[in-house]
Formats: sequence, C-alpha cells, structure tokens
Amino acid sequence: MDKEWLMIPGPTPIPPQVQMAASQPMISHRGKAFSCLYEEIQTHLREIFGTNEEILIFPAAGTGAMEASIVNLFSEGDHVLCLDTGEFGRRYKDIGEAFGLQVETLSFPLGRPVDPKVVEDRLAKDDKKSIRGILLTHNETSAGVTNDLKAVSGAVGEHPAFLIVDAVSSLGALPVKMDEWGLDVVISGSQKALMSPPGLALAALSARAWAQTEKAGLPRYYWDFRRAKAYAEKKQTPYTPAVSLLFGLNAALKSLTEQGMEKIYDQQAVIGKAFRAGIRALGLELVARPGSESDTVTAIFSPAGLCADQWRKEVENKWHVVTAKGQGQLAGKIIRVGHMGFIDPLDILSVLGALEMSLGITDKDKHESNAIKAAQKVLAEGGLRKTCE
Amino acid sequence: MDKEWLMIPGPTPIPPQVQMAASQPMISHRGKAFSCLYEEIQTHLREIFGTNEEILIFPAAGTGAMEASIVNLFSEGDHVLCLDTGEFGRRYKDIGEAFGLQVETLSFPLGRPVDPKVVEDRLAKDDKKSIRGILLTHNETSAGVTNDLKAVSGAVGEHPAFLIVDAVSSLGALPVKMDEWGLDVVISGSQKALMSPPGLALAALSARAWAQTEKAGLPRYYWDFRRAKAYAEKKQTPYTPAVSLLFGLNAALKSLTEQGMEKIYDQQAVIGKAFRAGIRALGLELVARPGSESDTVTAIFSPAGLCADQWRKEVENKWHVVTAKGQGQLAGKIIRVGHMGFIDPLDILSVLGALEMSLGITDKDKHESNAIKAAQKVLAEGGLRKTCE
Repeated sequence: MDKEWLMIPGPTPIPPQVQMAASQPMISHRGKAFSCLYEEIQTHLREIFGTNEEILIFPAAGTGAMEASIVNLFSEGDHVLCLDTGEFGRRYKDIGEAFGLQVETLSFPLGRPVDPKVVEDRLAKDDKKSIRGILLTHNETSAGVTNDLKAVSGAVGEHPAFLIVDAVSSLGALPVKMDEWGLDVVISGSQKALMSPPGLALAALSARAWAQTEKAGLPRYYWDFRRAKAYAEKKQTPYTPAVSLLFGLNAALKSLTEQGMEKIYDQQAVIGKAFRAGIRALGLELVARPGSESDTVTAIFSPAGLCADQWRKEVENKWHVVTAKGQGQLAGKIIRVGHMGFIDPLDILSVLGALEMSLGITDKDKHESNAIKAAQKVLAEGGLRKTCE
Repeated sequence: MDKEWLMIPGPTPIPPQVQMAASQPMISHRGKAFSCLYEEIQTHLREIFGTNEEILIFPAAGTGAMEASIVNLFSEGDHVLCLDTGEFGRRYKDIGEAFGLQVETLSFPLGRPVDPKVVEDRLAKDDKKSIRGILLTHNETSAGVTNDLKAVSGAVGEHPAFLIVDAVSSLGALPVKMDEWGLDVVISGSQKALMSPPGLALAALSARAWAQTEKAGLPRYYWDFRRAKAYAEKKQTPYTPAVSLLFGLNAALKSLTEQGMEKIYDQQAVIGKAFRAGIRALGLELVARPGSESDTVTAIFSPAGLCADQWRKEVENKWHVVTAKGQGQLAGKIIRVGHMGFIDPLDILSVLGALEMSLGITDKDKHESNAIKAAQKVLAEGGLRKTCE
C-alpha cells in the first residue's frame, strides 16, 4: 500500500485522534451533549481567534464564510476596498461584485504583501469616509505570501471602514489577535491549520461589526449572523450542524490549545523557515519576496525549462507527495506546498528529499542532500545541548 | 455505558461502515481519487433522485440547498406559491421573503397534506401565468405528513411555474422520481434517510430549471449552480468539498443501491406502518390524518393531561430513546419519532416498548405489550412460511 504525503494548502492530513473523535455515534443537535460540545469548541476557538466574541460555525466551505461576511455587513452599492495579493484576494472581489458592491481593488505586485502605507494613503484621501469595508486575505495561499494583519489594521487607524480578514489558511498556525489588533470580522475554515476535515466555516465579529449586521441591507437567510447568534446563546445552531465534523474539530482544537498556541506558532515558523532553506539550497526561487513568505504554504517556481505541472506529477507519481498547482497567471509555472496542520518538522525533510530527487540534483557522488542539510540546520538550531550530569 | 437510541428526524444514526469510510485518510480535492469518488456518488444519487441530471453537492445544511434553489431560479419580486403543511413549508416562505420574492402561501390544515385540487384551482386562476415557482415540502417533518409529489406535479400540469421540492427528510426512504414526475428542482441532505453525517446539501435541476439559472436575477456566489455545474464537468466542486463526509455518503449510497431502492422503499413503508400500528394500539393520536402519514417520521400527540416535553424527557432519561419536540403551534403537545436511515424493524419494537413503559400502560398482569404485538403483526405479514423439505 502506497503511503501518500498530502502536502497541499488544504485539506490537510487528519490526525488519527481527530478521525476517531469524528467517528463517535451521532447525537441530537438539540440535546445537552451537543451544547457541551459546542461550548468546548467556543472556548478553544476564542483563544485561537484572540477574541471574547462568539465564533459562528456554519456547515460550509471557507468561501461560504467569505460570502457571509459580505452579506451581513454591507448594502448594495457600498464602496469597499479589496487588498489584492493573489487569487483569494480576487475571490473576495468577485463575491463583493456578485452582491452589487462597488469594489475598488488595490493590487500589489506578485509575491509582495499589502503595503500598509498604500492603504493608509488611500484612506487618507477618502474625505467623505465613503469606503465602508476593507477585504484582506491574511495568508494568500496562491502566492505563499503572508500579510501583516497588525500593520494593515494600524494603517486603517480611525477610518470607520470595517476590516474583514480571510484567515482560512492561517488561523491556528499564524498568530491572529482579533480583539487586540482591532479586526472587525475574521473568517476561517476547519480543513487547514486546524487539521480537521473540510466542511466547517468559521466567523467572528467585533462588537462594532455585530451592530452593523442590523444595518446591512443585503438579503440573507442561511448566512444570517443574527439568527446564528440567537441560537448560539442556546449553544445551538439554527440549522442542522455538521456534528461529526464538530466532534473532530473539538479534538483537534483541544490538542492545539493544550500544546499552547505560542508553541504552535513557534513550531510553524521553524517549519516554514526550514522548508524555505531547503528549497533555496536547491537553487529554486520562491514566489514570495523575502520578508513576506508564508510559513504555512510555499509557492516555488519550477527550474527554468521545466514545466511545473510535469514536475508536480513526477513528484506525485514517483514519491506520492501531493502538492498543488499554480493558479491564474502562475498556472504551469509553480508548485505549491502546504505545510500546516498535522505536519511536523520531519515531514519537511522527507518532502525536500522527494523534490530534490525528482529534479535529479542530488549530489550523486557524495549521496548528500543539500536541501535536507539546509533544513536540518534550521531545525537543529533549537536542538538539545545539555550533557548528562 | 448507556446505549442511546437516536430516534429524531435527523441527524440519524450512522452505520459503522459509513463511519469507517468517513475516516479514510484525507485526499486532495483536485486529484484523481476525488474525481472517482465524485463519479461514484453521482451514479448512486442519480438513481435515488430518479434523474439523469447532475446532482450538485454543497458543504451545507439542507437549508442551504433551500436557499440555493431560490437564488438560482428567481429574481426580486417574483411571485411564488408556498404550499404550507408545516414548519418546513414555512421556512421556504421565509427564505423566499428574505430574498424579496412575493410569496403567496396556500396553507393546509394541520395533519393534512397538500390538496392537489387546491393547487390546480389556484393555478387555473393565474391567467397571466404570473406565478413563477411553487415551493413544496415532500415530507413535512414537523407534522409527520407526506405530500404526494406526483399528484401535486400533475396538478401543476402545463403551468410554467417551476416546481421546487424539499426532499430533505424523504430522499432515500420514500420514492422520488424527479424526471418521471416532472419535478424542476429537488433538494435534500445527507443526514436523514441517506444515513450519513450531516453537512452535505444536495440539489438536482431539470433541463428547464438549468436554463432558468441563466435568467434568474438574485445575487449569488457560493450557491451559484452554474459555477458548480462547470466544476461538475471536471468531477470537482468549486470550493473545498467536505471530503470525509463524501467518503461516508458514498458508502451509505452504495449500501442502499446494492440492496435495491424498491426494497428499501418497501421496508420503509413496513416500518412506518408497524410503528403507527403500535402507537395506535397505545390509544395515542397521530398529527397526520389517515392516508397522509409519513413513513419516515411519526408525530404523536401526548395523552390528555400529559405534557409532551415531560413525556419526551422521561423516555430519554429512563430509556435513552431520543425523540424530537413539537415545533411552533405543536410545541409541548407532541413528540416526533424519526425512523429512517439506519433503523430497522426491530428498533421499532424496542422504541414502542419504551414509549409504552414510559406511559405505565403495559398490561401488568399479563406482562404483555399491546403496542409491540400490533407492530409485530404488521412486520410478520411478510414472514417466512416455507417448511423444510
């Protein structure tokens, strides 16, 4: 039986403990056992979102939570700014336009993050405060770029626009401090850093955003945050929740918070750094410019003369390492490797080994891997040095 | 360890084989293994829906598919008829109104099904053919009433209104012959008769309804059937699908279709009839009038002088049989017992025994259960009679 290494930017591998939790017998979603489950999940999620507010949970893909954040906050014709650093930023624009918003896009060059100064300058020109919302992707999966949430929030400053953050591929792996950083809406999903099966969309709102849900004019029913909140007070959901996925999510969240989120974030940073060190040792170029590289997803240009999709297939067919394609303008030019959730530092060494062998650039005389050596160097920096007494 | 008997109208108990299937290692939703899974599910679902059309699958509760059927077929101000036989019929009305439709409600008396003659008469008066859609709940879970889809479709006849059917608590247990009966949209969910975990919403459209999706004016993105169909051609979904739930659903569907849907429908009819025979033997009254009783959910008035919620709690606390409350005007007056999906005839005997004991009406001298006897009589009608040769 082939072992598969699932290294896409989500869904990510599911820990056996999470699978087992998800296999518990079905329960009624209107009974006490469900309310207890709901409350435990809330406690964990509040810590991970960095908020005291309720976290709403919908049976949906992450895109559902993106749509929910639009239809609950805005009215037709509202002017919003979309901060575009890649495909997922542009998806927010498409959703806004589908619902009749006037979406102004600030695009940043490929591989670069949102420049807070550009946001600040644009808002400074908005004398009439007509801009009602700012749509920001925390971690742009398509380019492997992480935006600086705190800095962008700082750039928004006192401007009244609602800052709406897609944290689908970051929450649980990269720090998100919603209340401290003044984020108005944060949305995410179960299937990435939260190492749970796909099918749960998450959303949290600031007090100010909650007030806005009463004023927003867009039509909504399934996504109506107000109805979801009314049921949340009973520790229930308005419609049948995805009970088995919630069982799984709770087990995953418990494992994360018990380990300690700061430790999780530190390990994620090491994993990202080690993987990039290995990739650079192979002489490969990243899409992300230095300083903005994502620690959860790395987007890598294929070597000159090699079609990225061919490379990806070789890695998958020969080594059973599953990576993701490039999207949009990057199609055929890059492969993307997800390394979040139930992925540990040793997985990184294996994957680097596969990428290296697939390119035929292992040092054949010495049988020595430059990529693995470079990654090990990063990983070993935190190694034990104490001698026995 | 207490054994729990989950007898609510969904989510229903999950067969161990389905749980095991749902626990398979995560796979990429853009790879070949996913496309194979998707295609197998399509084959099974087409048989169960009775259609040659594509079945769209969204990570969502059934209510999501209800909303999807509205936003993909209609435009603001469209006049639709809601055929109201209970709470779920009224939910369709609420969704329609949330999106600015002009919803005209035809309400039928409690416990009675939609009268096709009333529909026919109303449509006959619609000279200008201004009615654009008809919203119908196949199996009204709140009252334990089943509507006659074929007869209602016959009553619509040549009128151009789109007939939209909520088959959430019927599909897979009661016959649905979408193409043969001329249904335009049929929506359902994974968590009831399909004996899979909740979190998947299903929708199928007639060719005429597909054409209408291009004309409908309501804003949509996540629910956009057109985008879902474009991905369906690649045997994929536009956004991350709930992979583990699909693994589970496929196992459940395979088991249903292998057993044969006609056999499943026959067994469901026997289960419903046997359960009702037992309930009537207890001298209890059903909400559903004779001839319209649902074979998947039975709504039972509590005996005079006994609060239904107290009764429900007693049955749950003492016998670990979990039933559902009455909703709306029936709150406190009824209990609802779901008996579909992974429920077999013997489960019915146990549950009748618990209901009977909870009421203290077992014949104490003879230690004989009238309810169980009555149900056994129905079940035994199909019993073996052959002697050994």
